[in-house]
Amino acid sequence: MDNSVAALTSLYNRIADINNAAALLEWDQETYMPRGAANARAHQIATLRALGHELATSDELGQALDAAGEANEASGEEDGYATALVRVGRRDYDKSTRLSPAFVEESARAEAHAKSAWREAREEDDYSRFAPHLEAVVALNREKAELLGYEDHPYDALLDQFEPDTTTSDIDAAFSELRDQLVPIVTALRGRADGRADILRRSFPSAIQWKVGEELIASIGYDFDRGRQDKSAHPFCTTFSISDVRITTRVDPNFFSPAFFGTLHEMGHALYEQGIDPALERTPLADGTSLGIHESQSRLWENLVGRSAAFIDFFFPTLQRAFGDSLSDVSARQFYRAANAVKPSLIRVEADEVTYNLHVMMRFELERSLFEGALTVADLRDAWNEKMRDYLGVVPTRDADGVLQDIHWSMGAFGYFPTYSIGNLMASQFYDVADRDLGGIDKHVSEGRFAPLVEWLGEHIHRYGRTKSANELLRDITGGGLSASPWLRYIRKKYAALYDVDLD
Amino acid sequence: MDNSVAALTSLYNRIADINNAAALLEWDQETYMPRGAANARAHQIATLRALGHELATSDELGQALDAAGEANEASGEEDGYATALVRVGRRDYDKSTRLSPAFVEESARAEAHAKSAWREAREEDDYSRFAPHLEAVVALNREKAELLGYEDHPYDALLDQFEPDTTTSDIDAAFSELRDQLVPIVTALRGRADGRADILRRSFPSAIQWKVGEELIASIGYDFDRGRQDKSAHPFCTTFSISDVRITTRVDPNFFSPAFFGTLHEMGHALYEQGIDPALERTPLADGTSLGIHESQSRLWENLVGRSAAFIDFFFPTLQRAFGDSLSDVSARQFYRAANAVKPSLIRVEADEVTYNLHVMMRFELERSLFEGALTVADLRDAWNEKMRDYLGVVPTRDADGVLQDIHWSMGAFGYFPTYSIGNLMASQFYDVADRDLGGIDKHVSEGRFAPLVEWLGEHIHRYGRTKSANELLRDITGGGLSASPWLRYIRKKYAALYDVDLD
Repeated sequence: MDNSVAALTSLYNRIADINNAAALLEWDQETYMPRGAANARAHQIATLRALGHELATSDELGQALDAAGEANEASGEEDGYATALVRVGRRDYDKSTRLSPAFVEESARAEAHAKSAWREAREEDDYSRFAPHLEAVVALNREKAELLGYEDHPYDALLDQFEPDTTTSDIDAAFSELRDQLVPIVTALRGRADGRADILRRSFPSAIQWKVGEELIASIGYDFDRGRQDKSAHPFCTTFSISDVRITTRVDPNFFSPAFFGTLHEMGHALYEQGIDPALERTPLADGTSLGIHESQSRLWENLVGRSAAFIDFFFPTLQRAFGDSLSDVSARQFYRAANAVKPSLIRVEADEVTYNLHVMMRFELERSLFEGALTVADLRDAWNEKMRDYLGVVPTRDADGVLQDIHWSMGAFGYFPTYSIGNLMASQFYDVADRDLGGIDKHVSEGRFAPLVEWLGEHIHRYGRTKSANELLRDITGGGLSASPWLRYIRKKYAALYDVDLD
Repeated sequence: MDNSVAALTSLYNRIADINNAAALLEWDQETYMPRGAANARAHQIATLRALGHELATSDELGQALDAAGEANEASGEEDGYATALVRVGRRDYDKSTRLSPAFVEESARAEAHAKSAWREAREEDDYSRFAPHLEAVVALNREKAELLGYEDHPYDALLDQFEPDTTTSDIDAAFSELRDQLVPIVTALRGRADGRADILRRSFPSAIQWKVGEELIASIGYDFDRGRQDKSAHPFCTTFSISDVRITTRVDPNFFSPAFFGTLHEMGHALYEQGIDPALERTPLADGTSLGIHESQSRLWENLVGRSAAFIDFFFPTLQRAFGDSLSDVSARQFYRAANAVKPSLIRVEADEVTYNLHVMMRFELERSLFEGALTVADLRDAWNEKMRDYLGVVPTRDADGVLQDIHWSMGAFGYFPTYSIGNLMASQFYDVADRDLGGIDKHVSEGRFAPLVEWLGEHIHRYGRTKSANELLRDITGGGLSASPWLRYIRKKYAALYDVDLD
């Protein structure tokens, strides 16, 4: 390795160690920390994050990036690691240094206040208590977009934080196909929901759910020597190193779905992080390349595999043995139908696979309008309710079930929502190619062979970390860009058969 | 608060956050970390510890100490916090800056090699494999003593790392009283060990041991809102803030003692750290003032309370209810005798309360001789075996049970062992004063009232953190210095009655 590349790597090693330590502090906060420690822990996390930020925006790092970049160009040799490190490092450095410490601090304060106000407003079902804080957060995000810079649309700059190199118009193109085709599908499926979906709400003892989930993900390929599962109020996946990728879940003893499909979801994220090339460890390349790509991995396992007939045919006998009486009068087919019941509803996080993307799409449309200036915060609630009626045919009677349901806006995370649907669309794009390469994924899955798919994902996606961008991955795998067509095809085929209805 | 004191405090806040984060990484390593993560975690801990050390030895901190010291002297007002912060901070700063980064690095490398060699040597019962590494570590510690500086004895400098302001001659004085009087006591008790000590080795289900231990320490005063207990191979207490003091223990389902008395021991350490004045949070004053004082707190609860007749009279009915058949044919008196069986043995960590200090004393004598140059590493094994014969009347047939049994020397921790016995002696010194102040601790304990003792310790010891040195605490509480007399009196009285033998 060239000396200047080694020097740059060494600076990044230190930053990575600090950020990974901060991530452990955050993990502990959600899993094991005694409640009295909240205040001290907040100080510790703030100190480590500030330290990481200082180093990541230091002149020393900027100079090291210059030196490594020049050496890499001058060498004339093809060094994929050095090229990617300089490219990704330069990108991160330029982004972070564009926001002054004073701006970052002001945003953090405004968001902290907005978060408290959001909690209160949601509790008291009163959007007007949140609106002034949201106003401030939106204004700061407008300023942020200007500071970060963009070519066509201020929203591009915000989006770029979570889904690098993807623009508002990329999403517009994919989402308008989605909107045009999905709304009629949802309408066609209305009222056909399976009357026996309540079999998922029987008694499923927590300890058995836990064991079944852990055994399943171990058999799929989650490496418990390089990770673990714990309980937390909100499930998440977090990474302290490629050899320490942890997931959490929550278990409801009277509802099968949250723990089971949640565990598959987090496992999908974790397989990605565990599958990154170990040579990238302790550098900014050892991370998921975009939130959309990350979500494609979790959704692929949760829905395309986990809710498939092939998987349920394979796994249902194990569930019957594990849960005894609760499933003894149920067939695999009934279980499959219950796990895929479609019903338009008010709350995004409880939405089924079909309607979920409409929840996301309307948030994207509202955000875009806010940043175009076509919509004001004062009008946001009415706009929300109108879109719910248009797309899903349901209208919230309480703001707590409507415009106040998500935490994201209070945290200033504009541009984040679209990555959920991007992930769903990409999952189908990748699945189709893998399906062809592997001669039919269903055949493997129905016999409990998960290794071929895990290896395919590892080979084509996971190992690269951030050395390939999301668009490069898409292009190299599918030959094109983001598209809603494969996902729409998948939905049509699956649900036409399930509900015996014509969806073409 | 004066500006310069506030500025100094703010620098210390950052250092404290970093060190506390490192402590969490270490805790996780011993409790929940997946085994594959060892290498990455070692990097993370090294980075954070190095960062903490850099800040703690920075010119900026040195100047802030000067400024705060001058301002505090000039102010003419009595500011206990500022005075203590500058005194303790200056002491730490001077110590740390006397060791160059190169020396610290060389020592760390030599110790890492010595630790590996020690593990192998112990496994293969071959002292000669460890000796050359120990030679190197001793040489580095000789150099360290010169760098740190001392007045009378090079060993003073090493001791001072763990037991500030206590000298070799202080320990000599206390330990020679101990040696002269304890060896005859051990001889007099020989062969009188209770034949029913094996009642502690019956079946004690792990989950019940866990519950009994947690309920007991909660009732004594350990605050589970500011701490928690987890499992680890070697029990320890660790602190991430005054509001997050965690302990660990190990449970053997066929042996009552390790978990029960281990939990009381670690709880003693934890009550100290939980009891520090919250105003000292995030400064170097929020810590135990010496290892001896710390050990006095753990030993007080483990032995002076936990193994007392008063405590066992109170708690034995609870144990009988919890463990059913295993204790149904046992009386409280028999349990008390079993928990206090005295028998000279080879291994320090398994030694009873009476013989334990002889194990420590011989290590102190060997260390002192090594640093005086009166003993060589080559002769250490023979010297060990000879002292075992003289003091305890038992001689190891394997080095693994003798000179190779402890990890301390491989880690370069010379001057550490004495603090174990200092803790035992101080525990009795403090206990006697508390006993008088509270009108008899036994009376409270036999009725399950622990609050008076916990409060007394909090008032006289815990709250001060490092604002008072160990010697100041001793002087303010007992009117004198370290002494073996109270402990020897306690042992004579307790064991004369227990074994019906004259020990005067």
